[in-house]
Amino acid sequence: MTPGRSMILPPPLHAGARVALVSPAGPLGGPAEVALAEANARSLGWEPVVGRFALARTGYFAGTDDERITDLREALADPSIDGIWCLRGGYGAMRLLPMLDGDSLRQRPRVLLGYSDITALHAAWQTAGVVSYHGPTARAELSPFSRDSLIKAITTGHEPAGDAPDATCIVPGRVEGRLAGGNLALVASLAGTPWAVSFRDGIAVLEDVHEATYRVDRMLVQLRLAGAFDGCRGIVFGHCTDCPDTSEDGRRTLRDLLSELGHALNVPTLMGVPVGHIPDQWTLPLGAMATLDAGAHTLQVHRPTL
Amino acid sequence: MTPGRSMILPPPLHAGARVALVSPAGPLGGPAEVALAEANARSLGWEPVVGRFALARTGYFAGTDDERITDLREALADPSIDGIWCLRGGYGAMRLLPMLDGDSLRQRPRVLLGYSDITALHAAWQTAGVVSYHGPTARAELSPFSRDSLIKAITTGHEPAGDAPDATCIVPGRVEGRLAGGNLALVASLAGTPWAVSFRDGIAVLEDVHEATYRVDRMLVQLRLAGAFDGCRGIVFGHCTDCPDTSEDGRRTLRDLLSELGHALNVPTLMGVPVGHIPDQWTLPLGAMATLDAGAHTLQVHRPTL
Repeated sequence: MTPGRSMILPPPLHAGARVALVSPAGPLGGPAEVALAEANARSLGWEPVVGRFALARTGYFAGTDDERITDLREALADPSIDGIWCLRGGYGAMRLLPMLDGDSLRQRPRVLLGYSDITALHAAWQTAGVVSYHGPTARAELSPFSRDSLIKAITTGHEPAGDAPDATCIVPGRVEGRLAGGNLALVASLAGTPWAVSFRDGIAVLEDVHEATYRVDRMLVQLRLAGAFDGCRGIVFGHCTDCPDTSEDGRRTLRDLLSELGHALNVPTLMGVPVGHIPDQWTLPLGAMATLDAGAHTLQVHRPTL
Repeated sequence: MTPGRSMILPPPLHAGARVALVSPAGPLGGPAEVALAEANARSLGWEPVVGRFALARTGYFAGTDDERITDLREALADPSIDGIWCLRGGYGAMRLLPMLDGDSLRQRPRVLLGYSDITALHAAWQTAGVVSYHGPTARAELSPFSRDSLIKAITTGHEPAGDAPDATCIVPGRVEGRLAGGNLALVASLAGTPWAVSFRDGIAVLEDVHEATYRVDRMLVQLRLAGAFDGCRGIVFGHCTDCPDTSEDGRRTLRDLLSELGHALNVPTLMGVPVGHIPDQWTLPLGAMATLDAGAHTLQVHRPTL
């Protein structure tokens, strides 16, 4: 977000909302995943509109850059489309950033839902000053927990987060700030670019998958050296799934890294909330204000007071 | 390097030069590696001075940040030390960057030798406007090829590179520029920081190890989006060692990535030169001018005309 710019909340997705299902990053496994995504959308009362290239495959991408941006652009240009639900992450969304029109994102704000590699698109929405939703991808089997949070976040506007009883308090304290972040690898990969994420006046929400501890260390150090954490008010780390603490990494863990970061910044820090590559996920509105109480293991989203 | 600032060439290391052996990143396996490094230095006519914490170990670091920066600082503060040869890479050098005094690097320019994670220190030398040497770490078994190039680069001042008959021309053409870069993962990890690498008016020298193709893709895209390649005149990629082109990455290879980059920038591009995690390595003076002729498979360093 541009500092000082007010954030726009896209209209909620009520029954009958038309939701584009697109693949801006990695390829799907096959039509069954699209069918599951359509069923997910219908179960939420939405009408799914599958992108032309949703099932395309070019190497590790869901089609060429041109094909992937075409589906996104067509969805954004269609006035009947109310939201965009990304089918999966993987890798490839950040390649599309120079081809997205940030002004149009703000002129006609729309719900964006997804996580992991979709963090690149969240950065585009945030840069345009539009709230976007960090939550399950469309092809996921939605657990009751994930479904409940998603409905609250996007449909009813109720508080989608709340208690995280299984979380670990790293640095206690209570703070308010704007939610910002997403997948750590993507946030680090956006450093130095026009879509760089800033945690100033914010609560950093981070997660990752398949990263050795030294890589997580390196990404956090990059973001510190790049100033991304300057003015950060709090840190919420979800899960680092399949992030081995083995071999020569053995004596340094994610908890050590977050303790180092949280104490260096001297901000409330909570680890292990329902965010990441896990079955039960919160859907969090990035760009919205929230209150973190690390000692109480709670993250409360202030939806009406954007 | 600050644009327009002249680069300083450190004095060459002649017989009797005192060379500090330090571990600014990952830990060594044991004293035998220090012994090999000392033998390497003596075989080049240098007197090795082993850092106090060269054998320290803290998790995946060669000691704490304080211990690692202490060895570097003591070497830089000692007027009898003529050069710094890093014992190994790994991870951890970039954590020391805010603790290094760039002004002192320029006031008393000294040889720096190493690669891989040592790219972070190269970035400090380059930012200070001092040529630094991208080549073997001190604990390596030096092949005759690597030894020859190292001696030419650092001791005699002769042309240390030249022909790369096994390289692959990706985009033909001949161009002059300053050598810049190092390990791709580190160059990407410095994006957005005060030590960010710029290839403006330069020839990008890159290599990597243990990175899936999609990660190399992401790093190159980050650097493009961050403007690092703006004004770049040529690209020289060494080797990406143990970078699997397998599973879902299968249809997109390093060559595809370099072809995409070289053609997008429209600059001479050469792949497979003796740079990287391989036995036979060039020692290249980063910050020095060179001529790349991709079609002829040659990289010629202009040593006297800095």
